[in-house]
Amino acid sequence: MNQPSLPFNQLQHSTPLALRQQIASGRYQGHTSGLGQGRVQANIVILPDDWADEFLRFCTLNRQACPLLDITEPGDPIFRHLGEAVDIRHDVPRYRVYREGVLSEEPSDIAALWQDNLVAFAIGCSFSFEQPLLEAGIVLRHIERGLNVAMYQTHIDTRPTARLQGKLVVSMRPLKAAEAIQAIQITGRMPNVHGAPVHIGDPALIGIRDLGAPDYGDAVPVAEDEIPVFWACGVTPQSVVQASRPPLCITHAPGCMLVTDLHNHAL
Amino acid sequence: MNQPSLPFNQLQHSTPLALRQQIASGRYQGHTSGLGQGRVQANIVILPDDWADEFLRFCTLNRQACPLLDITEPGDPIFRHLGEAVDIRHDVPRYRVYREGVLSEEPSDIAALWQDNLVAFAIGCSFSFEQPLLEAGIVLRHIERGLNVAMYQTHIDTRPTARLQGKLVVSMRPLKAAEAIQAIQITGRMPNVHGAPVHIGDPALIGIRDLGAPDYGDAVPVAEDEIPVFWACGVTPQSVVQASRPPLCITHAPGCMLVTDLHNHAL
Repeated sequence: MNQPSLPFNQLQHSTPLALRQQIASGRYQGHTSGLGQGRVQANIVILPDDWADEFLRFCTLNRQACPLLDITEPGDPIFRHLGEAVDIRHDVPRYRVYREGVLSEEPSDIAALWQDNLVAFAIGCSFSFEQPLLEAGIVLRHIERGLNVAMYQTHIDTRPTARLQGKLVVSMRPLKAAEAIQAIQITGRMPNVHGAPVHIGDPALIGIRDLGAPDYGDAVPVAEDEIPVFWACGVTPQSVVQASRPPLCITHAPGCMLVTDLHNHAL
Repeated sequence: MNQPSLPFNQLQHSTPLALRQQIASGRYQGHTSGLGQGRVQANIVILPDDWADEFLRFCTLNRQACPLLDITEPGDPIFRHLGEAVDIRHDVPRYRVYREGVLSEEPSDIAALWQDNLVAFAIGCSFSFEQPLLEAGIVLRHIERGLNVAMYQTHIDTRPTARLQGKLVVSMRPLKAAEAIQAIQITGRMPNVHGAPVHIGDPALIGIRDLGAPDYGDAVPVAEDEIPVFWACGVTPQSVVQASRPPLCITHAPGCMLVTDLHNHAL
């Protein structure tokens, strides 16, 4: 991860709008976990319009991984329902550009790449359910340690469309049993941000070989008296894009989300 | 467990009232899992009135193990709010009589033991949440195999009153991860029948040494890809009675419950 020019702790009390302005100006390119005053953060997928309709279909079929928050009109870079002046060309700290399914660059601004046929999708993010978990007194180790959440590609197939298919990506949080039980109940009530976990316990059962080697994000240690708890993750489209190879797809870099003005409690 | 004189499967379609009549006549003395047409089943605790007030306090402090459904007036053997003609002297298939905390007998009727100072408590039972679990398509192995559920004393202390204290008893059901996640959400919505599990995973963390040797009920095998899921159990008062030694306490025999007329869906 690039070193952000502005230190993380200087942004912790910024409003979502002020934070987006810092990000749009290029002064912050880091992960957004714990930032944005408890507002909704979003995974981003941008596709040409001839793939966008199919991706919408994919999201509908894979709602636990891809709960949709907003969609732009083709060519319009503004999300109309996520807050004040949300411009998808500038407001994400770091993007990933996939060409024919291959990661080609990680810019902090995509104004130069914008085209009249692009459609942007905002997808709910597990950061939104971390707030009620923290409020319930559950300690989340990656936040405690200032790490990005650990994410893994599983062997679980998503429900495919004509051209889009691939494996489910999950985020993992290590929890004590009583906390895991509580977290399942809390997140089960939040279907717009991935809902209840898809798996608990043995990682091998969903095709994860080594918890210490996440496919995205940072490794987060699991203590002996803890259970790894796995939620469907909005990074899933990136695994799907790599498998399905649309000519162009722009996403956020994992953990570097779009911070909206929506309140988490509204989800 | 005694062999019931009437075979279990002959009773599976009996109404709760007809079932109580068979039980009161002494013709069925077996466990009641799967019987009673999906009506609420209850754990029973009967104490002399000078212990009953304190037991009510104990239930209030330990609601997850002891969710109260009804209480009789001192000396009155009839539960007024559980259904038609529910007489606690006859309507439980098998009772346990504890004297000074020591199990002394297991009669199928307690008319001869009834006294003017006795108070009966009906406590919610996990059989009530098994119905919505089955309706959600979750297979419960003990039901599938016609076994009583496996119950264990843990090392978890209940919240004590002046004279009542002891360890929490839990019931265990082996579930696949996805089923465990679903079961936690379903039972979390049923606080009147023990609510969400108290533990999942490693039994040693709650003081259970050997899953194959339950303290009450039958051993139920756990497959390699399954997680043991533990719920607070209404047999807890029996562990408390053994530790706290009231002069007399009568309970149901584990698994042999009072079948009421209340609908599980009403809980």
